[in-house]
Amino acid sequence: MNKVTVQCPGTVANLVCGFDILGMALDAPFDIMEVRLLDEPRVVIISKDGFPLPSDPAQNTAGAPLLEMLAELNGDALATAGRRLSRPVGFEVSITKKIKPGSGLGSSAASAAGAVVAANHLLGNIFSKEDLIRFALFGEKVASGVKHADNITPCIYGGVTLIRSIFPLDIIPIPAPPLHVTVVHPQIEVRTSDARQILRKQVLLKDAIRQWGNVAGLVAGFMLQDFDLIGRSLEDVIIEPIRSMLIPGFDAIKQCCKEAGALGGGISGSGPSIFMLSKDESTARKVEDIMKDIYTRIGLDHHTYVTTINQQGVKVIA
Amino acid sequence: MNKVTVQCPGTVANLVCGFDILGMALDAPFDIMEVRLLDEPRVVIISKDGFPLPSDPAQNTAGAPLLEMLAELNGDALATAGRRLSRPVGFEVSITKKIKPGSGLGSSAASAAGAVVAANHLLGNIFSKEDLIRFALFGEKVASGVKHADNITPCIYGGVTLIRSIFPLDIIPIPAPPLHVTVVHPQIEVRTSDARQILRKQVLLKDAIRQWGNVAGLVAGFMLQDFDLIGRSLEDVIIEPIRSMLIPGFDAIKQCCKEAGALGGGISGSGPSIFMLSKDESTARKVEDIMKDIYTRIGLDHHTYVTTINQQGVKVIA
Repeated sequence: MNKVTVQCPGTVANLVCGFDILGMALDAPFDIMEVRLLDEPRVVIISKDGFPLPSDPAQNTAGAPLLEMLAELNGDALATAGRRLSRPVGFEVSITKKIKPGSGLGSSAASAAGAVVAANHLLGNIFSKEDLIRFALFGEKVASGVKHADNITPCIYGGVTLIRSIFPLDIIPIPAPPLHVTVVHPQIEVRTSDARQILRKQVLLKDAIRQWGNVAGLVAGFMLQDFDLIGRSLEDVIIEPIRSMLIPGFDAIKQCCKEAGALGGGISGSGPSIFMLSKDESTARKVEDIMKDIYTRIGLDHHTYVTTINQQGVKVIA
Repeated sequence: MNKVTVQCPGTVANLVCGFDILGMALDAPFDIMEVRLLDEPRVVIISKDGFPLPSDPAQNTAGAPLLEMLAELNGDALATAGRRLSRPVGFEVSITKKIKPGSGLGSSAASAAGAVVAANHLLGNIFSKEDLIRFALFGEKVASGVKHADNITPCIYGGVTLIRSIFPLDIIPIPAPPLHVTVVHPQIEVRTSDARQILRKQVLLKDAIRQWGNVAGLVAGFMLQDFDLIGRSLEDVIIEPIRSMLIPGFDAIKQCCKEAGALGGGISGSGPSIFMLSKDESTARKVEDIMKDIYTRIGLDHHTYVTTINQQGVKVIA
């Protein structure tokens, strides 16, 4: 086999109270990537859509992780582990991007995670999931300057994932009930770097305590499949009050969606997308109507998705 | 029945990273309380040991919750709910205290929780566990000036409990594996009010994130019965670095106990007791030897307990 096609899910990072530690994979939207094995150690990026993404692999979120993988394939560590390849390899990557860059739905993570999962598949799965996350982090570094793992991890693992620590990497998949997710992406730009900049470096201890009480409640709620507890715990007293100011209509959407039966939700990643969790599809569709209605009244272009939690992560489809 | 005897477990509040939200009940030490029904609406406190605790019920940690219960029994709310009693009642409480006041092992909570559970038993269990916690909080208010629930809750529920919120009360029992607990109580005084005073009102956001990652890991570790994850998550980067300065030998004890195989541990409540969790009894006993050895070398009097997580909470024994 010298060619593989993978489907790479969008992801929600900063899961409300779980800022920087909890992420979740979505069944929609997703990217499609085709990765072809080359017989020389280089990486070629082919963009099959209109997004102005860098074609220099070192500057591309799919390319940078593959360059790291190639460096490790040619390094001493792998030779010692008996995993050095007998012949030179490289990768040609064709990306059909459906997850809009800048949407807050893990577009860069999907490229990074998809590239390394596909490449690893072509190499006979010689790398562990943790290895793949380590490589993919270089894609996030290229995209936002920060090696954050809370999109990459759910993108590779599927489901809801806890990143207890990045250095050293400590990943815990969190069993969660099959929730329905409604997402709205208002067509405004919120740069990750701006969204990070406006956060305060210090927070009140009493707010931090309330936040970690909610984090504990959310993890317990997922694992106990206790929908009410999940709903009560979907509260962020630290990040959301600041970042939501960058997203028009945020408070109205959140309040109306909860009144319509959503368990709760918040900002996806660093925005501008907003997501809401619901127990059933009919509520998730009501929530979509509310989101559309509010942004139509504001006069903001927007996309919506009604989907479910993706359980598998990046998937080989051909 | 007009008399009941209950056994009231000691508790560990502020479970390492779970400051103010996670508590745990212990099989030892425990108090014994005898509560007798009186036919007039008053509360009498009889102390059966040498501790100088207030005999005025309004100032006593067992008395104050019972006065609250009596007030509610005679109030309109209960009459509406059909729970007003047909005759006046009061309570005489005899306390045999084994949990030393000021040990950090929930001595005041044991008195408060034991009193309300026993009284409720005599009344035919007309109050819910949440009602009992609400009454018992008045005991903590008398003892430390603060209505904190992270000793009372595990004392009444048993096991490990999450207090996601006090107002409104939101209690979640967290299923946990049957861990062994070693406790050392060095004979020094750390007042709860002092221990609270030295905490900073603001914390770094990056520390708070690390803390809620650990809280999420600890809750997941308990529920998945993943001992390694429990161990990795037993890290407190916010409270312990400050409060441990009040406890001689803390760093040495923690390090040596972990080297001997303990999963981890920390300050019990606001100290001075230190607790360590272990997978098996033989490790828990090794840990005890280390604690004794270090305090003997420092020249500090101390008590130790090798015990398990109490699963039942306050128990009627006669």
